[in-house]
Amino acid sequence: MTALNLPDWAIDASKTVMVDGIETHYFELGSGPALILIHGGGPGADSWGNWRDTLCDYAKSFRVIAYDMPGFGRSAKPSPQSYPYDQASRNRHLAAFIETLGLEQVHLIGNSMGGATSLGLCIERPELVEKLVLMGAAGLAVNNPDPSYKETLRAYDGTVEGMHTVMAALTGSRFKIEEDSVRYRDALMRDPAARVAIGTIVRSDLTYSEDKIAAIKHPTLVVAGKEDKVAIPARNQRYLELLDNSWGFIVPHVGHWVMLEAPELFVQITSQFLEQDWE
Amino acid sequence: MTALNLPDWAIDASKTVMVDGIETHYFELGSGPALILIHGGGPGADSWGNWRDTLCDYAKSFRVIAYDMPGFGRSAKPSPQSYPYDQASRNRHLAAFIETLGLEQVHLIGNSMGGATSLGLCIERPELVEKLVLMGAAGLAVNNPDPSYKETLRAYDGTVEGMHTVMAALTGSRFKIEEDSVRYRDALMRDPAARVAIGTIVRSDLTYSEDKIAAIKHPTLVVAGKEDKVAIPARNQRYLELLDNSWGFIVPHVGHWVMLEAPELFVQITSQFLEQDWE
Repeated sequence: MTALNLPDWAIDASKTVMVDGIETHYFELGSGPALILIHGGGPGADSWGNWRDTLCDYAKSFRVIAYDMPGFGRSAKPSPQSYPYDQASRNRHLAAFIETLGLEQVHLIGNSMGGATSLGLCIERPELVEKLVLMGAAGLAVNNPDPSYKETLRAYDGTVEGMHTVMAALTGSRFKIEEDSVRYRDALMRDPAARVAIGTIVRSDLTYSEDKIAAIKHPTLVVAGKEDKVAIPARNQRYLELLDNSWGFIVPHVGHWVMLEAPELFVQITSQFLEQDWE
Repeated sequence: MTALNLPDWAIDASKTVMVDGIETHYFELGSGPALILIHGGGPGADSWGNWRDTLCDYAKSFRVIAYDMPGFGRSAKPSPQSYPYDQASRNRHLAAFIETLGLEQVHLIGNSMGGATSLGLCIERPELVEKLVLMGAAGLAVNNPDPSYKETLRAYDGTVEGMHTVMAALTGSRFKIEEDSVRYRDALMRDPAARVAIGTIVRSDLTYSEDKIAAIKHPTLVVAGKEDKVAIPARNQRYLELLDNSWGFIVPHVGHWVMLEAPELFVQITSQFLEQDWE
């Protein structure tokens, strides 16, 4: 399917490895400290859609690795009868991925459901993590007074137009949605196994107790889009309160995908946080 | 008084100019876009105490100007019978200072009462301002649930020990208060005219209506120390909500003086904001 074609540099960086029983796809570029990028959930989400605008820039300073979580992108999508697709599985899979690649300690940047997975690793396997960046992260149950984005996601009907509506609901008012991106996400959802998997994934509980979040001591940067209707400002604020060792970077005019809506600024600030000693 | 001695580079940068009837002292270094730094209020506050750790770094990229507001530092301290020492006077004095120096448009970084003065200029003379940085800024009436810092300021007894207590109340738990800084601020308060002036200044209303704040359209960076007991997180949060075109940078383990408690990080982030196009 041509909508899923990748540029040559991405094909060169594309790899697979068997992890925790899941054939796991990832992009790997550059050298230096290991940095793992973790995409969000939702229909058509994957590593390429989330991180394509930032991979080459991160590769200038890091050994950057962007993988597809089980059920997403080019990773395996076993039947929900044989794989639970819950947050505990995603956390265990990430730990196994890091160990399979032979990495000792990594930086993590997690968006949305990928934020919840990053937090899960910090809670369960803290020794594997050096620094953490949360970008519109799930993981905390903070009441969202506006349920409209959830209705939009629920109303997704599997069409190209439906995918456009989903992307518009997730991004800020200034973001220009490229048709290539819509068609890429739509093409991923043409795979019946992807549709079955996402049906289970979107029902998983992504939250941890506030006590578990507050016990995380890794240096953490909380990046927040002011127009994020999913990870609302109140949730990001709560992360800043609970995580003692956390910095905050708040960006106007953008929503749930700062790494796509303001990629240069996102890479600049997160790279400085990861490379420098801010304490 | 030796406690007030300045290093040679600061003596070279020290100037005075008559502005709005006030002999106004300022430091000026470097070349490039004009950047005005505005110190906070409170006993012993002035441009040197606030900005001494950042002036030389800013001078690498900017024509940086740090002045003493009327009644502070090395600027004139007329009797409160002849000068009102209210926020309107500070705003008018800043506008006149910029015009007297022949500057057309400036960047502003304002701390605490200096933040209120920066906001005042943006409201009353928006054409004079390019970008704005608020650092623990006054200017908004947001209820502070912990009145202890106010009690500490009220209890200041004019002694060196009292000044140390004031500085400890304003800064974060990790900040090491240098005795030189305490003695410098204490020495400033030995001037009877300074004591009379500050007695009037601390009673001035520093707040604007939320409507006036929300009308400010300048690109603004809100820098906030998480342990700031004066400009509490809720107030900084409100600035981020009201100022449509505002970015936020939240720093842990520091209080009301991020520019002194984390000077390298403060200069780095604020300089990038001022020099780059973040939109």
